[in-house]
Amino acid sequence: MNSTVLSTETTAIANENKAEKVKITLVEFNETEYDEQVFTDINECVKHTKKNTIKWINIDGIRDIDMIERIGKLFTIHPLTLEDILNTIQRPKFEDYEHYVVAIMKMLYYNNGLQSEQLSILLFENNTVISFQEEHKCNVLDTIRTNIRQGKGRIRKFGADYLAYSLIDAVVDCYFGVLEKIDDDIELLEEELVGDPDKQTLTRLHHMKRQMIFLRKAVWPLRELINNIERSETKLIKQSTTIYLRDVLDHTIRIIDTVESFRDLLSSMMDVYLSSTNNKMNEVMKVLTIITTLFVPLTFIVGVYGMNFDYMPELHSHWGYFGVWGVMIIIFIVLLIYFKRRKWL
Amino acid sequence: MNSTVLSTETTAIANENKAEKVKITLVEFNETEYDEQVFTDINECVKHTKKNTIKWINIDGIRDIDMIERIGKLFTIHPLTLEDILNTIQRPKFEDYEHYVVAIMKMLYYNNGLQSEQLSILLFENNTVISFQEEHKCNVLDTIRTNIRQGKGRIRKFGADYLAYSLIDAVVDCYFGVLEKIDDDIELLEEELVGDPDKQTLTRLHHMKRQMIFLRKAVWPLRELINNIERSETKLIKQSTTIYLRDVLDHTIRIIDTVESFRDLLSSMMDVYLSSTNNKMNEVMKVLTIITTLFVPLTFIVGVYGMNFDYMPELHSHWGYFGVWGVMIIIFIVLLIYFKRRKWL
Amino acid sequence: MNSTVLSTETTAIANENKAEKVKITLVEFNETEYDEQVFTDINECVKHTKKNTIKWINIDGIRDIDMIERIGKLFTIHPLTLEDILNTIQRPKFEDYEHYVVAIMKMLYYNNGLQSEQLSILLFENNTVISFQEEHKCNVLDTIRTNIRQGKGRIRKFGADYLAYSLIDAVVDCYFGVLEKIDDDIELLEEELVGDPDKQTLTRLHHMKRQMIFLRKAVWPLRELINNIERSETKLIKQSTTIYLRDVLDHTIRIIDTVESFRDLLSSMMDVYLSSTNNKMNEVMKVLTIITTLFVPLTFIVGVYGMNFDYMPELHSHWGYFGVWGVMIIIFIVLLIYFKRRKWL
Amino acid sequence: MNSTVLSTETTAIANENKAEKVKITLVEFNETEYDEQVFTDINECVKHTKKNTIKWINIDGIRDIDMIERIGKLFTIHPLTLEDILNTIQRPKFEDYEHYVVAIMKMLYYNNGLQSEQLSILLFENNTVISFQEEHKCNVLDTIRTNIRQGKGRIRKFGADYLAYSLIDAVVDCYFGVLEKIDDDIELLEEELVGDPDKQTLTRLHHMKRQMIFLRKAVWPLRELINNIERSETKLIKQSTTIYLRDVLDHTIRIIDTVESFRDLLSSMMDVYLSSTNNKMNEVMKVLTIITTLFVPLTFIVGVYGMNFDYMPELHSHWGYFGVWGVMIIIFIVLLIYFKRRKWL
Amino acid sequence: MNSTVLSTETTAIANENKAEKVKITLVEFNETEYDEQVFTDINECVKHTKKNTIKWINIDGIRDIDMIERIGKLFTIHPLTLEDILNTIQRPKFEDYEHYVVAIMKMLYYNNGLQSEQLSILLFENNTVISFQEEHKCNVLDTIRTNIRQGKGRIRKFGADYLAYSLIDAVVDCYFGVLEKIDDDIELLEEELVGDPDKQTLTRLHHMKRQMIFLRKAVWPLRELINNIERSETKLIKQSTTIYLRDVLDHTIRIIDTVESFRDLLSSMMDVYLSSTNNKMNEVMKVLTIITTLFVPLTFIVGVYGMNFDYMPELHSHWGYFGVWGVMIIIFIVLLIYFKRRKWL
Repeated sequence: MNSTVLSTETTAIANENKAEKVKITLVEFNETEYDEQVFTDINECVKHTKKNTIKWINIDGIRDIDMIERIGKLFTIHPLTLEDILNTIQRPKFEDYEHYVVAIMKMLYYNNGLQSEQLSILLFENNTVISFQEEHKCNVLDTIRTNIRQGKGRIRKFGADYLAYSLIDAVVDCYFGVLEKIDDDIELLEEELVGDPDKQTLTRLHHMKRQMIFLRKAVWPLRELINNIERSETKLIKQSTTIYLRDVLDHTIRIIDTVESFRDLLSSMMDVYLSSTNNKMNEVMKVLTIITTLFVPLTFIVGVYGMNFDYMPELHSHWGYFGVWGVMIIIFIVLLIYFKRRKWL
Repeated sequence: MNSTVLSTETTAIANENKAEKVKITLVEFNETEYDEQVFTDINECVKHTKKNTIKWINIDGIRDIDMIERIGKLFTIHPLTLEDILNTIQRPKFEDYEHYVVAIMKMLYYNNGLQSEQLSILLFENNTVISFQEEHKCNVLDTIRTNIRQGKGRIRKFGADYLAYSLIDAVVDCYFGVLEKIDDDIELLEEELVGDPDKQTLTRLHHMKRQMIFLRKAVWPLRELINNIERSETKLIKQSTTIYLRDVLDHTIRIIDTVESFRDLLSSMMDVYLSSTNNKMNEVMKVLTIITTLFVPLTFIVGVYGMNFDYMPELHSHWGYFGVWGVMIIIFIVLLIYFKRRKWL
Repeated sequence: MNSTVLSTETTAIANENKAEKVKITLVEFNETEYDEQVFTDINECVKHTKKNTIKWINIDGIRDIDMIERIGKLFTIHPLTLEDILNTIQRPKFEDYEHYVVAIMKMLYYNNGLQSEQLSILLFENNTVISFQEEHKCNVLDTIRTNIRQGKGRIRKFGADYLAYSLIDAVVDCYFGVLEKIDDDIELLEEELVGDPDKQTLTRLHHMKRQMIFLRKAVWPLRELINNIERSETKLIKQSTTIYLRDVLDHTIRIIDTVESFRDLLSSMMDVYLSSTNNKMNEVMKVLTIITTLFVPLTFIVGVYGMNFDYMPELHSHWGYFGVWGVMIIIFIVLLIYFKRRKWL
Repeated sequence: MNSTVLSTETTAIANENKAEKVKITLVEFNETEYDEQVFTDINECVKHTKKNTIKWINIDGIRDIDMIERIGKLFTIHPLTLEDILNTIQRPKFEDYEHYVVAIMKMLYYNNGLQSEQLSILLFENNTVISFQEEHKCNVLDTIRTNIRQGKGRIRKFGADYLAYSLIDAVVDCYFGVLEKIDDDIELLEEELVGDPDKQTLTRLHHMKRQMIFLRKAVWPLRELINNIERSETKLIKQSTTIYLRDVLDHTIRIIDTVESFRDLLSSMMDVYLSSTNNKMNEVMKVLTIITTLFVPLTFIVGVYGMNFDYMPELHSHWGYFGVWGVMIIIFIVLLIYFKRRKWL
Repeated sequence: MNSTVLSTETTAIANENKAEKVKITLVEFNETEYDEQVFTDINECVKHTKKNTIKWINIDGIRDIDMIERIGKLFTIHPLTLEDILNTIQRPKFEDYEHYVVAIMKMLYYNNGLQSEQLSILLFENNTVISFQEEHKCNVLDTIRTNIRQGKGRIRKFGADYLAYSLIDAVVDCYFGVLEKIDDDIELLEEELVGDPDKQTLTRLHHMKRQMIFLRKAVWPLRELINNIERSETKLIKQSTTIYLRDVLDHTIRIIDTVESFRDLLSSMMDVYLSSTNNKMNEVMKVLTIITTLFVPLTFIVGVYGMNFDYMPELHSHWGYFGVWGVMIIIFIVLLIYFKRRKWL
């Protein structure tokens, strides 16, 4: 059994040292132009940027610490921010430094169980957004890139802060997919509960609860994060973008509400499981009692006439045997009627 | 089994594309005049509006996205508001834009289970209220139209903000109907619990809990919504109307209190169900034990005299058989007295 | 079974139309004078008021809507206030209008179950207090009238706001009586639990929980109500009276604390009930097991010697029969010792 | 069974009238002087006070209402304060009047169950502290008197406000003693749970929970009380004393934390008890099943050869009897192995 | 069984008097210099301090009260602070005095159960940090000393406030180790639950819950503590250090979240345990019922033909015996099929 609750926490910094190749994607655009290039070195990348465009530099993979540090120097990022970007067991948070703001979030996806990947979004003064993606497992960002390329929606007309908002929005939206998956699982489990619950149902229920505990830990800080963005007095985020943030906030609150509903539901389902087990036992009990009650008195009666006393008048009566059968059948029927009345049958 | 908790969430935007005919109802009135017209096109509708009247445009059906977008342009509605109107899995909310305010709510009704329909209410500067109703399943708004036509109550004397309040009030009031229906269901369930609970009772209990979880999710944001209206600094809502909003707020708090009471009650009922099941098992247990305890010793005794030993003096005694019967009857009576004392009978 | 939780809510406005006779009691007093008169018409009543006195007009019965509306016009009461007075499923609340303040409360009393009656208290500028009592079932107000008549306490020396405070204080105080009654009931139930709990105990426990849920719903708004009075900036309530309100607030907090304690206690009692049922089952189980364990092996032995094999040497031994008895008695004793060790006996 | 939860509330004002002798202890001190005198009349006491000293007047017993009222007049105490002092079912509170402040607290002690006694502390302008002790059962105050006499600690050097603080501190400290007693009880109970829980354990668990509910009701207001002192703008308490109050506040928070921990612990223990009962039943169940499973088939076999058919070939075989024994022993051993595998033995 | 919840509270001041040798370690450093010395007397230590360095005086062992008091006088520490340092059952707290600030924390470590040790950190005006460690059991501080010596990280470049932060950070970090240990334990317990839970599992579950209650009590004040540091207006902590404190705050919130998750998880596990026990009983029940149901009717049948009636026609039929066997085998098979259908086999 895998420890879902802490999984993101314990597998963390361990393999930091393994220097992986980092993939740097530069997307530049304004209302009329669009350009997309891939680099492996940050200096190369910075050289190629043009004026009068919104620049989005996405870094896939955060294991090459040297590179990250060079990026840090190039953009004068505070060492604590760099530590937060590298430390993937980070709690989601928003921080406001003088010349940039940073939001660190978890992208959730469902792939043989709940998985999470860290995305750090930095918004700089000169219309630049830098995003660090832990590994390239969750392809949420690709959709945004396609949107920009095709000039769909508002994204090409607005500034870098709207781009940053779009990234946050995309991350929050992928939570809904996870919730729908869980909703399906819960429904399946409910059908199992009503149908024929067994030991596996219990294990599955517990597993769902575990996931809910994990989800909750991931979801609650999100609300705080977006609240903090709204309340922050940074000049990097324009008033017109704040209105969109309010919308994301609404989404996070809806996610939280849903997670809480799931928790309540699972709690109720555990009760149902327990009651259901009791009901089953009750039924087994009844069968046992019926059998015992029906046959034990009869067995006693036949035992009586199996005794070897010299003088037992009934034994010698011609109709004795059939008389006993008659008595036994009457007892049997009376008991059956009794059970019917008690609603045991 | 239908997923009540998420039902409103998963059946959402899916069929957006299916262009349905939209029905536009224009109601114009002031203290002396009243006019009601039905259109299928918004431009037609706007042409027909008169001066010096309060205008209420109700749109039934939100699937014709083109129409909605044209309305949006005509009244310069923010794109986010339009998205919120179209997205029926929206969390209830109030937002304050410069030249209009918008409240998005859920109308609840009971029709083979809890159902909900979205109503968006927009209040504009020029004495205009636009309402978007998801589908025309809940006929709450008709009552208001009748009231206006007949000039009942305060509605003809007050402005557009009072009309908007009336819509909100009507939506909140229909929650009480739902609560009464649930109250009846709970009472029926309680009688079942006290009487003869079976497996169906458990399923029904769980189903009620599910509904309560759904209701809770629908009801809590309502309070926040009305709080936000009160606290907003919009000039569209006059001081004199705020006093009525305070009243609606009181109603929502009462609804929340009642939902919480129901939750507590259902929780207690689950406990009662579990205890009740245990009590039943206990009773079955007792019957089993009584039968076993009464007959097993007797069966042993008759077994003794069924043995085939050559030398068993009792067998040859003339009164042996009747003596054994006597002993058995005494044991039987002693055990019965014992059970009476233990209050098992 | 009566639905206590909603009872006050569903039996509400129904019989509004039935015009009952309304009884109007006018009490006028100052430090030296005292006068008490009964009217059936409000105009008559108002004509008889004197100058320089504190006037308390109490209306018993709120079904005569015409009368209530005339009172409303006479004292220029806001229509919403009138609605609140008439609507007896109102949530307790305090509201501050320009020339008067209004507090709507529930009087609780215990009469074959928890009952409640609505009392609305209006304090006007010209030293006038009007109180509307739903029906005259709860005689709390009589005590205050007696106090005024006899000039006991501070009530004759202080203004109309102190009179209003006295009414509120009287209502809050009658909650303590209800709590004491419930405390007694809980104690009885606890004795039952420790003694011999049966199915009735469970029903009673659930019934108590129901009452607690109802009480809670009635009590929590009380605190808010008095808080609101304290925080309101009305000039109708003097500084010197605020100190007394602080005292009532303390009382309501104590009531809330006690209700919460009762809830906790009942929760613990439900656990005890469940455990107690289990314990009982355990005991029944033990008896069953002891009987089975004692007699089943013996029955087997006697069965052995009931077999009809031609060649069974023991059968022909002279001491066979007594030997078998000996063996069986030894087994019996050994098992008894075994049970003693296991503490089953 | 005594009702611990409400005991302090219901035995309250009842015997107010029984005039007991009141004992008045006057302690006067400054850095150099110390004097202690006992009076029975308050006027006598006031006459004997000296200038330039801190005066602490302690009144033991609050049943002599006349005396209390005379004290009230002498020191111009607000009638509500006097009521609070006399009403021993008061919720702990702090109030700030113009020329004095008053703190009313509960002293807790453990004497055949949790007991409480009310202490009211009044701090006046002219370096005077008056304390009213309900009955003289709890001797916490004696320790302070001893400290003053011996000039230990800071108490002689600081003002009357420090003396008042010392009284509050002493009351709070005596809660720790109670908590330790309860901790011991819980530990004993836990050992019982792990060892051999019986019906008494359940009753004791419930009793502990009751005490915890009572304690909680007593402890929570304490925090608020001290918070209120700190936040009050009275000039009677110097800045230098506030720092000590912060310390008492810390203590009360620690007490609250501990009470909450105990509650959680008891909750867990109730679960353990329930599980433990189930485990026991399980074991009994197993024994029953083993016995039944071992002997019922064997009894069937011996029954077969007890049948009286004319033609039963096995009966006449010379080795039939021993063969049957062999078969039965084999079945017995096979079943034993089966149970071992199922871990029932 | 050891009382984990209160252990730190009851073993407290008891052995205060036992004067242990105190070990004083002075670490002085700035960007270029580093010096470390060990003393047994504080005066010696103070004499040896140099100018222009950051001074860290660590005191191991707090039982030598004289020494502590001398330190108090030397650095003019408020008596309450000294009491707090000595009293190891202190609640973690931060206090801001005029010329110094003090943070008192618990270091947690896992050594045959959860252990805690108190660390008090005082930050003075003249670049001095004094830390008091209860006993030298937890070697967290050694790591910091090594860091300073080797000039790793930022610690040599920043001021005394950063040193104080480092100490706090180190204490908070050691909580993560404890959490990981507990996470492992919980996983082991979960495997046990799914596999073969026994009575030990229950005891272990309860023990884990106990630890969680203890942890919670230790962890919650931590958040408040760091919040208080941030909010305090002391000039001793520079703005640049506050940003690091925000980071520690994030860590403490993560710790709290994890502890709460563990609590939820353990709660769910208790449910699983209970259900699991029920399932087991259910299975035992089934075996019992199957055996009884299979053999009791058969035993009845063989009993019938063991009766000694003179006239029983079947007995004399040549195929009677084999016929009975046939009937019995058919009954047996029919019952087996019935059980298969009921899924009992």
